[in-house]
Amino acid sequence: MSEIKALVHDVFGTVVDWRSAVIADGQALGARKGIAADWERFADEWRGAYAPSMNRVRSGELPWTNLDKLHRMALDTLLDKFGITGLDEADKEWFNQTWHRLKPWPDSVPGLTRIKRKYIIATLSNGTVRLLTDMAKHCGLPWDTVLGSDLVEHYKPDAEMYRAAIHFLGNDDPGSVMMVAAHNNDLVRAASHGMKTAYIARPYEHGANQTRDFKAEHDFTHVAAGFEDLATQLGC
Amino acid sequence: MSEIKALVHDVFGTVVDWRSAVIADGQALGARKGIAADWERFADEWRGAYAPSMNRVRSGELPWTNLDKLHRMALDTLLDKFGITGLDEADKEWFNQTWHRLKPWPDSVPGLTRIKRKYIIATLSNGTVRLLTDMAKHCGLPWDTVLGSDLVEHYKPDAEMYRAAIHFLGNDDPGSVMMVAAHNNDLVRAASHGMKTAYIARPYEHGANQTRDFKAEHDFTHVAAGFEDLATQLGC
Repeated sequence: MSEIKALVHDVFGTVVDWRSAVIADGQALGARKGIAADWERFADEWRGAYAPSMNRVRSGELPWTNLDKLHRMALDTLLDKFGITGLDEADKEWFNQTWHRLKPWPDSVPGLTRIKRKYIIATLSNGTVRLLTDMAKHCGLPWDTVLGSDLVEHYKPDAEMYRAAIHFLGNDDPGSVMMVAAHNNDLVRAASHGMKTAYIARPYEHGANQTRDFKAEHDFTHVAAGFEDLATQLGC
Repeated sequence: MSEIKALVHDVFGTVVDWRSAVIADGQALGARKGIAADWERFADEWRGAYAPSMNRVRSGELPWTNLDKLHRMALDTLLDKFGITGLDEADKEWFNQTWHRLKPWPDSVPGLTRIKRKYIIATLSNGTVRLLTDMAKHCGLPWDTVLGSDLVEHYKPDAEMYRAAIHFLGNDDPGSVMMVAAHNNDLVRAASHGMKTAYIARPYEHGANQTRDFKAEHDFTHVAAGFEDLATQLGC
């Protein structure tokens, strides 16, 4: 049984509360430009476009397209759908960059700071290296390093992403790397590559609209209420 | 003229004093195993094998071989050459990992900590991601993220390394990324890709044996006596 050396983390939903931050930036933009819109629904639909747009890349329908560009394609479509007009290019680019400015759940920074004392902590996210680096600087996430989908030009749950974490941080020993996520499917895929797994409960990721991932549905290595709880379980 | 967003750093020699740390680990190993050897010369010859062994990879004579493996090949050769016997596999592996435990020059951590407040700071080193992450944890280097040669399976000064920094941290805008190094050739290559450049003077990298890189020999964007000086020049 390999000793754990590195923890790699899903970010959107697991470490950061994307929904509150996107809603807040939408409201700020609306106030600045005099636009009334249902920014909660806008945020949910923007995030709703995430999996289908990545699947267009994963299936080969689109060539490699990074997450900033997928976010922008979805933003343009939703601005049309919601009938939002009067935004110039700088406004749209600022709003698209909201995904670089997300805010952590309250337990993320204190828990990760404890875990970092004993383990390598890194991202394993579908964001780009630059997005993840910007976000960490914006909100003080203490990553040792950042692994993003642009490094391998594949999105999770493609095998290339999990293999990258095992290769770059685990010296090709899958059991020395633990995937941390609030999403059962991400952990099931990580386990299929031999990685250890830690489930973090985020029952409010989607606000009142959450339909799944309320609890760990498999036998993961750790099941935790948040990063402080995970740190305690790991003896940090 | 692009605004600088990210600084990427050569590590061995520029950020860390590899020579003192390798000599100290050699002396500690010698004391533990009762081996007398000229550990200063050993360290210099080990580092001396660095460029030729990478060139065997860069020229295609060897397939991609990471720096840990190149260090180990050179270590085994040098133990023979120095007539050092009585080391078991664990000793050799411990000594090979000395390159994961190097120590920063005194100005590196305070200067980088200041620079990090305003800019993304990352490595752009021929070490592996894991080596660079281990080293940062060992000595408190505050990188936002780590770019190592194993990400692109090329060693500097191959173009792929500079292009990786420009792509992953600069959104493909070369002028938004600055290469920081104590070695003129690294900076000249970075400039040839459109990157900005900062020279850090490290006249004692090779101890009394230094033969070059005593000063900036080209018109770099910044020329600094160390990281505290660079931080001041950058207004950090």
